[in-house]
Amino acid sequence: MSSIEDLARSARVASRTLAVVDSERRAAAVAAMARMLESNEATILEANRRDVADARNAGSTPALLDRLSLEGGRLAAIAQDMRKVSGLPDTVGQVVDERRVESGLRVHKVRVPIGVLGVVYESRPNVTADIAALAIKTGNAVVLRGGSETLRSNRAMVEALKQGLASVDLPVDSLQFVDSTDRSLIRELLRLDQWIDMIIPRGGAGLHRFCVENATVPVIVGGIGICHLYAEATCNLERALDVVENAKCQRPSVCNSLDTLLVDDAIARAFLPAVVDRLGARGVQFRAEPRAASILGERAEVVPAGPADFETEWMDLVLGLKVVDSIDEALDHIATHGSHSDGILTEDPAKAERFVREVDSAAVFVNASTRFNDGGQFGLGAEVAVSTQKLHARGPMGLQELTSYKWVGIGEYHTRR
Amino acid sequence: MSSIEDLARSARVASRTLAVVDSERRAAAVAAMARMLESNEATILEANRRDVADARNAGSTPALLDRLSLEGGRLAAIAQDMRKVSGLPDTVGQVVDERRVESGLRVHKVRVPIGVLGVVYESRPNVTADIAALAIKTGNAVVLRGGSETLRSNRAMVEALKQGLASVDLPVDSLQFVDSTDRSLIRELLRLDQWIDMIIPRGGAGLHRFCVENATVPVIVGGIGICHLYAEATCNLERALDVVENAKCQRPSVCNSLDTLLVDDAIARAFLPAVVDRLGARGVQFRAEPRAASILGERAEVVPAGPADFETEWMDLVLGLKVVDSIDEALDHIATHGSHSDGILTEDPAKAERFVREVDSAAVFVNASTRFNDGGQFGLGAEVAVSTQKLHARGPMGLQELTSYKWVGIGEYHTRR
Repeated sequence: MSSIEDLARSARVASRTLAVVDSERRAAAVAAMARMLESNEATILEANRRDVADARNAGSTPALLDRLSLEGGRLAAIAQDMRKVSGLPDTVGQVVDERRVESGLRVHKVRVPIGVLGVVYESRPNVTADIAALAIKTGNAVVLRGGSETLRSNRAMVEALKQGLASVDLPVDSLQFVDSTDRSLIRELLRLDQWIDMIIPRGGAGLHRFCVENATVPVIVGGIGICHLYAEATCNLERALDVVENAKCQRPSVCNSLDTLLVDDAIARAFLPAVVDRLGARGVQFRAEPRAASILGERAEVVPAGPADFETEWMDLVLGLKVVDSIDEALDHIATHGSHSDGILTEDPAKAERFVREVDSAAVFVNASTRFNDGGQFGLGAEVAVSTQKLHARGPMGLQELTSYKWVGIGEYHTRR
Repeated sequence: MSSIEDLARSARVASRTLAVVDSERRAAAVAAMARMLESNEATILEANRRDVADARNAGSTPALLDRLSLEGGRLAAIAQDMRKVSGLPDTVGQVVDERRVESGLRVHKVRVPIGVLGVVYESRPNVTADIAALAIKTGNAVVLRGGSETLRSNRAMVEALKQGLASVDLPVDSLQFVDSTDRSLIRELLRLDQWIDMIIPRGGAGLHRFCVENATVPVIVGGIGICHLYAEATCNLERALDVVENAKCQRPSVCNSLDTLLVDDAIARAFLPAVVDRLGARGVQFRAEPRAASILGERAEVVPAGPADFETEWMDLVLGLKVVDSIDEALDHIATHGSHSDGILTEDPAKAERFVREVDSAAVFVNASTRFNDGGQFGLGAEVAVSTQKLHARGPMGLQELTSYKWVGIGEYHTRR
């Protein structure tokens, strides 16, 4: 048995214990893990500084170095987030769909942990603590495979988190850390369906695709997707402009920021120049298809859209612009390119209703920024990932999405006819 | 683009239309499909007779020939089942979790069709009609790949079912039939994640494993699993015997029939001989581990259990017998071998509660036959498959399990802070 299979098998054994631990003890474990993160601060920061120094020597950008760092109170903030997770309402053990069926059997479903999660992630070391907290809170064991840039930080954090588990007498094997930068181990991890129940990739499109291509364990695909707003002919231009600006500029590097603005022909001459004025002042560059380009004329921040520009998730201060003749053309464009977060800006209730009914994306908005597609904003309390697939969970995944259920049938020596 | 990708892409296009069709029209479509199955009876039975004749010439067993045949009123029964599906309560369009969140945004989830299903199945031609009915009822398009033994029957049925769709003006591309026995097409189908949202295999363990190994589309694994009953020391022996007999003998060829009986040492001397007497008279053969064998002594229907016998799903009149010292040993055995349908027979409420809490299988029973793990028995109205995985759906899958959801956020030009 390979070493990674051994990790996963030990996690499976630990998961059997975790699955029968009561709610209070799981919450206490997460709080203890937060405490141990703080009491090991010096060790963790020392490890983190070495990761950051290596990345600096390797020529990483300041933005990346900033993502790697745990300095400046970030570790305390991570511990605080863990305490918040500790205090969230528990979903495990909830009884769903209780009924007496025709045979007289009493039947219900009860929410149970999934079992063992495998999480493959890149860059930011806070993911290690976030996922550990969410997994233990929901009674799941987890195998963590972080990025090579944060190997030392992650190792030090996991050691501290395991001390937290031990302090409340829960199995330390519940948290398993793949302490290696060997990428071939990821491929191996993805095929351990005997021991792992679900793979959550957190990273770029390439990582997600790699997981889908190679996994025999079910994978939650997410986080990737082109986000659209459609400014319909009746929208309030001034207020619509606020929403477009917020969707693009409030945090351009994340998955729910705006990628493409579709503008109805009826308002394009008024709205497009206003968009370029307002967002251009915020540093946004534009990729305009021919009709939009001809309305905008020669402007430094506007370049013609290339063939791939409406297929690109920008994650940056770039915005695609396209004029459409009708809601039908907008719906067609979104059906071809969308899946994540798509919205309409309109004063016409019939158009809003049609948009909501016909757009098949994880989140559909009327007169709201795409930035609202988020577990915190939707009231889930925490977010594991944002799914763009249709099985198991779609959109933001909170604690409930880290559970499965089992059927329970209680009889009096019932036999089937 | 290959021909099978073309089928899947056409199904995707059709699914966009289906997704916005109202409940009444979907129900009417399923009823029309049933009608067309009946009005094409002569053609379908002629095709079916040719399939059966080929299978007979190839030396198929009478049991298999019986599974293939649509004679003797079976087509009418299939049409009747479709009408039942047509009349089930609709789940698509249901609004779930409606709330106003902190930002003032009004948020809800709404159940939507999954999109395009891929179903790979073997043998029985009724699956073609069952799945078509369940898919259209829930607004999903479906690509069907049936067994080579029923190619002509399936082709004729799909033609009739498409006439039903056309008669209510729904796209005939909603039902796609892979009209080929080329097995390499299955592998291709499993990788069409751009067009297909979910693969449901219906067949033996080999088919399920093939799908898991080769798919990039999410797969629902199910139907396979070893079912256990644990006769605990306090159970009523006479009534427990009825349940054991029912679980093993009522329909031994199906996935929720009993495979292994665990008997507490305290009652083994009384219970095991009674089991062998009663079930032996029904033609059951037994595989006994050493302690059970030594209690039973020399009996024609009892042979020593081999190493793989407690890993084997019998689907036949065979039963594994094992003596355990305690509920702990029973729980350990089930944790190692179970996943599908497992039950305890007991008069001790604390033991029952512990068994229900600790056994991590799709369905857990107290004093009831494993045969109750079934969509019909659990009140779901219909069953697509029985899942033994933990993602998306577990245990019997009904109409709701053929839906996903999307998030909808309604604002007044809301922006995120």
